[in-house]
Amino acid sequence: MLSPVSWNENGVHIIEQTRLPGEEVWVDLESVEQVAHAIRILDIRGAPAIGIAAAFGLALAAKICPDQDPESIKACVQEAARILGGTRPTAVNLFWALERMQAHLTALGEVDGPRLRQSLLAEAEKIRAEDIESCKLIGKFGGALLPEEGTVLTHCNAGALATGGYGTALGVIRGAVEAGKRIRVLADETRPLLQGARLTAWELMRDNIEVTLISDNAAGHLMSKGEISACVVGSDRIAGNGDVANKIGTFSVAVLAARHGIPFYVAAPTSTVDLSLASGDLIPIEERDPSEVTHPRGIQIAPAGVAVRNPAFDVTPHDLVRAIITEKGVATHPNMAAQLQEMVSKAR
Amino acid sequence: MLSPVSWNENGVHIIEQTRLPGEEVWVDLESVEQVAHAIRILDIRGAPAIGIAAAFGLALAAKICPDQDPESIKACVQEAARILGGTRPTAVNLFWALERMQAHLTALGEVDGPRLRQSLLAEAEKIRAEDIESCKLIGKFGGALLPEEGTVLTHCNAGALATGGYGTALGVIRGAVEAGKRIRVLADETRPLLQGARLTAWELMRDNIEVTLISDNAAGHLMSKGEISACVVGSDRIAGNGDVANKIGTFSVAVLAARHGIPFYVAAPTSTVDLSLASGDLIPIEERDPSEVTHPRGIQIAPAGVAVRNPAFDVTPHDLVRAIITEKGVATHPNMAAQLQEMVSKAR
Repeated sequence: MLSPVSWNENGVHIIEQTRLPGEEVWVDLESVEQVAHAIRILDIRGAPAIGIAAAFGLALAAKICPDQDPESIKACVQEAARILGGTRPTAVNLFWALERMQAHLTALGEVDGPRLRQSLLAEAEKIRAEDIESCKLIGKFGGALLPEEGTVLTHCNAGALATGGYGTALGVIRGAVEAGKRIRVLADETRPLLQGARLTAWELMRDNIEVTLISDNAAGHLMSKGEISACVVGSDRIAGNGDVANKIGTFSVAVLAARHGIPFYVAAPTSTVDLSLASGDLIPIEERDPSEVTHPRGIQIAPAGVAVRNPAFDVTPHDLVRAIITEKGVATHPNMAAQLQEMVSKAR
Repeated sequence: MLSPVSWNENGVHIIEQTRLPGEEVWVDLESVEQVAHAIRILDIRGAPAIGIAAAFGLALAAKICPDQDPESIKACVQEAARILGGTRPTAVNLFWALERMQAHLTALGEVDGPRLRQSLLAEAEKIRAEDIESCKLIGKFGGALLPEEGTVLTHCNAGALATGGYGTALGVIRGAVEAGKRIRVLADETRPLLQGARLTAWELMRDNIEVTLISDNAAGHLMSKGEISACVVGSDRIAGNGDVANKIGTFSVAVLAARHGIPFYVAAPTSTVDLSLASGDLIPIEERDPSEVTHPRGIQIAPAGVAVRNPAFDVTPHDLVRAIITEKGVATHPNMAAQLQEMVSKAR
């Protein structure tokens, strides 16, 4: 199974996603700064995968800490958590994983250095294994919601590449396909960083799942022609009321889907649910570099010096979300908030 | 004034829009096939500008026709009309201009070859001059609809570059600015061919009108944050009921605008109104080459061999259009169809 982040003898083993689909390059990250850099430039991206990488990043910090005593290792881990926590603001799985690892460290109590390292790594491995298991459950629950035959629109990449493996939104599609449903995928290219064109198309073609690429602008037209049966996307953070932050443009898909009566589903593990936020307008939205808009793949497409706005995420209000699919089940209206709360409780 | 299509001693003088904003290259097209090619590859684009180019294309056919007798020249013109009419299916101004020129030819009656050539060229020049005049009237009528101060979103390029000069949607913005209103523009980049990033940003910066570029995906987010006061777009064809065909993605902007209570205006000359079609679903939608999606500016962004859908236009139903602004006035609900009909009658 394709898994974009794992552990090996050198440290954190990743596929450099910015090179896809042109090149498939796997590298080992051997310092916390390398892990942070990979997250910042989106060689590692997708909320669950960022969480896994952060957990491995703390295990790596412990492994390479020059001192051997537990207190020094803990200090190395705290410093790594500070660095990794500063990489990207929106995906809550990052903070969730850092907190879970730190809580694990605290719960360990008095152990020696080697034991501490081993236990942190085991916890990071557990986060990764649980994420893969969650994706498969999301695939099972979500796959059941899709029609026996149809075309599913997805935005950005919420696939194997965004998770430990299998994917959330693409997990739902894989789940449906494995259940024998005849599902075709329409992939929004997802400007500015083209994760749909580069990553979703790539991983679905690799799995022989029928995929057709469109510019983001074409989604509404194809909906109006009756060519889309359902929409499924991932999420970077879900507020307590079911509002969903996801890649910029997701909100447009949801509004268009609502106009056409097309179900709009969100697939994410409970680690993406942030009960501390009452609604989506409290979710911090990262603004990224203007060059992502003016220079796709390094090629200048706009006049030099033009002003740019480049929000990386938007928030889809819960009223536009037909269901949120997690590894603990499916939250629907009218009790979406209560169901989310229950799912998160079950996951703890 | 910037004018993308005009006549000179060599033939049809154009700016090669596919090279913008990197290079500003003006060329003379000296054969009908060159004019047709320039329209097909979008060196000439924008419904009114295509109409003007087609009219000049017929004048060119007459000019370069190897025979001097009127019947031979008429045959050359008919053959040119056939070639030019096959370039692009959606923009009705193309067919409108070809028909007007051919009607002019018929109305000319028995004249000699030189007179026929001169008269055809004069009619083409008239089409161009009227278009510029129409844009200025559209700017006056439309400018009055914009707030004293605000941010206007536009999609694609309905500017000077898409017309004889001044622009339709950008004419509305120019009209408002000239009336002393403080208008900032948000330009959707407009994938796949990036006319917003390449052309709208370029021509507004050239005019010192404040412009900020966004990916198409960011429009909904900025609307939800209250950052957009109005939307103004052009059109390639308007059906008798007010349904509007325009660049792919326009429909998404209109649906998002409706959700946020933001006025959505369409600016176009009456030559864009096609009363022969009762509604927008009868407008032919051009599907263009997949490489426009997979290879923006020639750079591969998707896996080799991926399937692609690439509709170049979509239809925005009239219920989402607050007003259609023509050179004859402003059509609004509830009598949009009747008002369109009256405007077209006035224009004849």
